[in-house]
Amino acid sequence: MRVNLENIAIVLNEPHYPENIGAAARSAKNMGIRRLLVVNPLDFDLDRVLKMATHAARDVVEAMEIYDDLRNALAPFRHVVGTTARLGSRRQRVRNPRQMADELVSISRENEAAILFGTESSGLTNEQLRFCDFLVTIPTADFASINLAQAVMIVAYELYTANREEPQRFVPRLAARRELEGMYDQLRDTLARINFINQDNPDYWMLSVRRFFSRIGLRAGEVKIVRGICRQIDWYCDRKDEDGPASVPNGKHSPNR
Amino acid sequence: MRVNLENIAIVLNEPHYPENIGAAARSAKNMGIRRLLVVNPLDFDLDRVLKMATHAARDVVEAMEIYDDLRNALAPFRHVVGTTARLGSRRQRVRNPRQMADELVSISRENEAAILFGTESSGLTNEQLRFCDFLVTIPTADFASINLAQAVMIVAYELYTANREEPQRFVPRLAARRELEGMYDQLRDTLARINFINQDNPDYWMLSVRRFFSRIGLRAGEVKIVRGICRQIDWYCDRKDEDGPASVPNGKHSPNR
Repeated sequence: MRVNLENIAIVLNEPHYPENIGAAARSAKNMGIRRLLVVNPLDFDLDRVLKMATHAARDVVEAMEIYDDLRNALAPFRHVVGTTARLGSRRQRVRNPRQMADELVSISRENEAAILFGTESSGLTNEQLRFCDFLVTIPTADFASINLAQAVMIVAYELYTANREEPQRFVPRLAARRELEGMYDQLRDTLARINFINQDNPDYWMLSVRRFFSRIGLRAGEVKIVRGICRQIDWYCDRKDEDGPASVPNGKHSPNR
Repeated sequence: MRVNLENIAIVLNEPHYPENIGAAARSAKNMGIRRLLVVNPLDFDLDRVLKMATHAARDVVEAMEIYDDLRNALAPFRHVVGTTARLGSRRQRVRNPRQMADELVSISRENEAAILFGTESSGLTNEQLRFCDFLVTIPTADFASINLAQAVMIVAYELYTANREEPQRFVPRLAARRELEGMYDQLRDTLARINFINQDNPDYWMLSVRRFFSRIGLRAGEVKIVRGICRQIDWYCDRKDEDGPASVPNGKHSPNR
């Protein structure tokens, strides 16, 4: 079950830089959110907004709603989430972005929800935070000040990817034991033939090769690659043998392992 | 258990805009990542970089490493994750950012890992993707083109917040990219010599070999085993050549793959 993005809007309160509005529009569009509200922008240079929005998010910018009052902007929403970097004692519930998205899976079914972002320099005031049903804080290292459009991106990303079913870790279909043992036999013979492993006790020397491959979990196609290389080495050696037996000194020229 | 951020670096390949470098530095710093590498920036206007980085991320910018060659930049890393927006049939494993962070919890214990981002307009080329052990794609709605610094933020955010409770799978210290690329060069030459891969376009045929090894995560000692086998094949072929050149029909007897 996912967030109903049709019911999600991004609300930027008093943004200072048109580039941030444009970048926020692009981020929202990337993550399937099409509704953007701007309240009291300090500078609304449409060229600068559109440059950062890029052509692909132009529709989000053109449908953008501009308000001069936050209360009016938030009026039609049935749920409001406030974003804040501030820590300390909070009267409101604080979530991280993943918990927020998880809550909005249910909430967004039937309710229009606004995610509210404060001005770049100082964020949301206590008064503005009061409009919010709960707060979300993006976890950060020591340096907590996240660029406005970056904060929009993280929130939008979590909303887009929220999915209550746990994704399963995918393990591909692996080669059967039968295929592996055939490969090991062939590999042992080939490696012994080229004197990579000691011909007196090849199975002993194969232990590290087996350990190596078993750590991987080979697929059937990969077994075929390994066997194909062995076959090709054998074929090449056979061709050479037709030109006369090579003198292979046992134990000499062994590779430095 | 969390990602060891001391072992994480952000690598920007050929970024076009200094603002994106600065915004990426700020995002990294927000999320506790302090190492930033830039390869062949188109425009490196330090004033514009620092303006977006803000004072708080100035240290990340000042410690930034600049390279003119991607292979050199990646040489010391023991794990490389490539970011890509491209969908369609991929030869490499693709993760979402959360899965990526989850894998890096184990990997970053003992291994320096680079997260590689391509140029703004077109991302990473196929050739650049070959350096990567796996790929990460940020999920998006229809409009898939994410701003470079926004992509860095999402990846950094997932790395910072990843927290795994289950017991760790142990990932040993892996071979450095430098060692791996040396091995791939040797392997390519040897496999071309025995006609396992097409000599006309060996790098193309090496893709599946690279995919295979990167799925494993080779240790330095295992790189030596592979190179030892190559050396031994070469040695064996050289011995044979002394007995007279073999007639090797090109394209015939190619293994069934």
